[in-house]
Amino acid sequence: MSFIHTPSPAIEAISHADVEIDFLRPNVVGAERGVLDVTMAMRHAGIRRVRISWEWQGATQGEVLVVQGGISANRHVAASERFAEPGWWQAQCGAGKPINTQRYRVLAIDWLGGDGSLDCCIDPSDQADAIAAVLDHLGIPHVTAYLGASYGAMVGLQFAARHGARLGRLVAISGAHRSHPQVTALRVIQRRIVALGRSEGGIREALALARSLAVIGYRSDVEFEQRFDAAPEVGPTHTRFAVEDYFDAIGPKFVARFSPTAYLRLSESIDLQDVSPETVNVPTDIVAVVEDQIVPEADLLSLTERVAGASRLHRIHSVYGHDAFLKEEAAIGAILNKALERSCRA
Amino acid sequence: MSFIHTPSPAIEAISHADVEIDFLRPNVVGAERGVLDVTMAMRHAGIRRVRISWEWQGATQGEVLVVQGGISANRHVAASERFAEPGWWQAQCGAGKPINTQRYRVLAIDWLGGDGSLDCCIDPSDQADAIAAVLDHLGIPHVTAYLGASYGAMVGLQFAARHGARLGRLVAISGAHRSHPQVTALRVIQRRIVALGRSEGGIREALALARSLAVIGYRSDVEFEQRFDAAPEVGPTHTRFAVEDYFDAIGPKFVARFSPTAYLRLSESIDLQDVSPETVNVPTDIVAVVEDQIVPEADLLSLTERVAGASRLHRIHSVYGHDAFLKEEAAIGAILNKALERSCRA
Repeated sequence: MSFIHTPSPAIEAISHADVEIDFLRPNVVGAERGVLDVTMAMRHAGIRRVRISWEWQGATQGEVLVVQGGISANRHVAASERFAEPGWWQAQCGAGKPINTQRYRVLAIDWLGGDGSLDCCIDPSDQADAIAAVLDHLGIPHVTAYLGASYGAMVGLQFAARHGARLGRLVAISGAHRSHPQVTALRVIQRRIVALGRSEGGIREALALARSLAVIGYRSDVEFEQRFDAAPEVGPTHTRFAVEDYFDAIGPKFVARFSPTAYLRLSESIDLQDVSPETVNVPTDIVAVVEDQIVPEADLLSLTERVAGASRLHRIHSVYGHDAFLKEEAAIGAILNKALERSCRA
Repeated sequence: MSFIHTPSPAIEAISHADVEIDFLRPNVVGAERGVLDVTMAMRHAGIRRVRISWEWQGATQGEVLVVQGGISANRHVAASERFAEPGWWQAQCGAGKPINTQRYRVLAIDWLGGDGSLDCCIDPSDQADAIAAVLDHLGIPHVTAYLGASYGAMVGLQFAARHGARLGRLVAISGAHRSHPQVTALRVIQRRIVALGRSEGGIREALALARSLAVIGYRSDVEFEQRFDAAPEVGPTHTRFAVEDYFDAIGPKFVARFSPTAYLRLSESIDLQDVSPETVNVPTDIVAVVEDQIVPEADLLSLTERVAGASRLHRIHSVYGHDAFLKEEAAIGAILNKALERSCRA
């Protein structure tokens, strides 16, 4: 790299930082998975022996980022050389991406209850404590930033409230300090569908149905209109609406990879979210998607106003609504980049 | 009544009309119920023999109003001397009320399929034809105004499109020329819940659950927040959220009075709604509730712009959302009063 031509100060600073990082922290990347058996005092379920599955990847000596997604995400954020299958946030995590694995060490866990083996009330704060237990286990005293989306953002708020002394910054995308009562009502219905299926013997159909209902809330009304505004097939006694092909595709896929118990307990956990923003005392970036139908912008605005640490609200528009964190790669990437720039302790 | 003092022209006109009506049509009120067996060419289900249950009440010589409500409403709009049980629109219909039974003859039908005996695809246009058949049967050539809310408004648009020559004015409250695809998706889920319960033996629980899901859309998020923003009961393995008491109250009530087949076919009928506003060529008042979560204001605005007849959009705000026609007595009453004033042919 040559500095013979005089670059603009901004470019010089960034380049200089890159060089420093390259110098101070050799670009050694790795990846590791493990499980940790711990005894935890769970908020509602009392003392339990739980198994926490974790994975990290990226710069072995890099600053640590904790990255957590929605209830159907897991510890595998993105592909690495060692674990090559695609992860749930492939667009944002990898070499040279906003969650830059050449620079950062990226840690994530499988949600407690995610495999269906833990059939008790799981509070989002329990997940935060599980992450802290893994950090202790791996000898990581400080987390540069926690980047969470959806349920992962809820858990991030809990982590910041309970373990803020070891956290540099929180980025909470499309997740708030509470669930809105009307959205809780929709999730109660989803869980009751699964319970109905379980008691009556149609558990697979029921779980597929509950998932379909959930997914309606994940996208905006505009996207539904764009995709499914077609005339139905109608016979004398039978109809089939355009959206039904979609339901019949996503439902069974979800059933194949998610257990009913995991679904019930993680859905319930979302509705148990209850953290006072005033107890969140780290710099916090909050991302609100205006079209999100399950996390109202008003709740995220209230969260931004109430957190104790410096806070900033990023509003974006997306037809993908709640799913924007997975789909709006450029907008989300830009927010992550800025937040990580600000959290850089170098 | 004295005209010695000179009233304003507007007041004079109205008083004069009242006097004329009192003079021409003695204030004789009555009520009658009946059934009509007809052979109908249904839009999707072909030629069928159907039974239509009707009721009228009010001024026996009065101008005729057709009044129709949501899928769970019926022909009994309000109490009369003869049929004294409360009706579904008690607040708006009766002596001296906006739908003034001392002045008008108020006709309504039970929805085709409302008793569960008609298990085929029922188009909203079939309902409009059923109303027309009853009008023929009763020898009523002209309807001064059709007042419809929710599904009743959808059927009203069909009635205006198909039988506009015998209709003076349409008032369509919270019902449009189509169902929004996202709301159709929600109703597909409701019907699939019932189908799941039917195939697995839990039909009562399933119907109650489907109804609970439907009701979430009938009210605004604000009302849910006001009513159900309370901490849940949480034990080690069990939660109960504030909204669940509500669900457990409304579900069984609905099951007691509605058959699964009726629910499936009328829910489906809402989603079959498909009428070109350009074919509605009567003066039309359209009422949009801004907070309505199942009939978007944008669809009603589009409807207002597109109908061929003179049209007027009335926007109101209500925490009751889609249910505003039942709850916002003053606002809805004022709109009905104005519309009926304009429809007066005297």
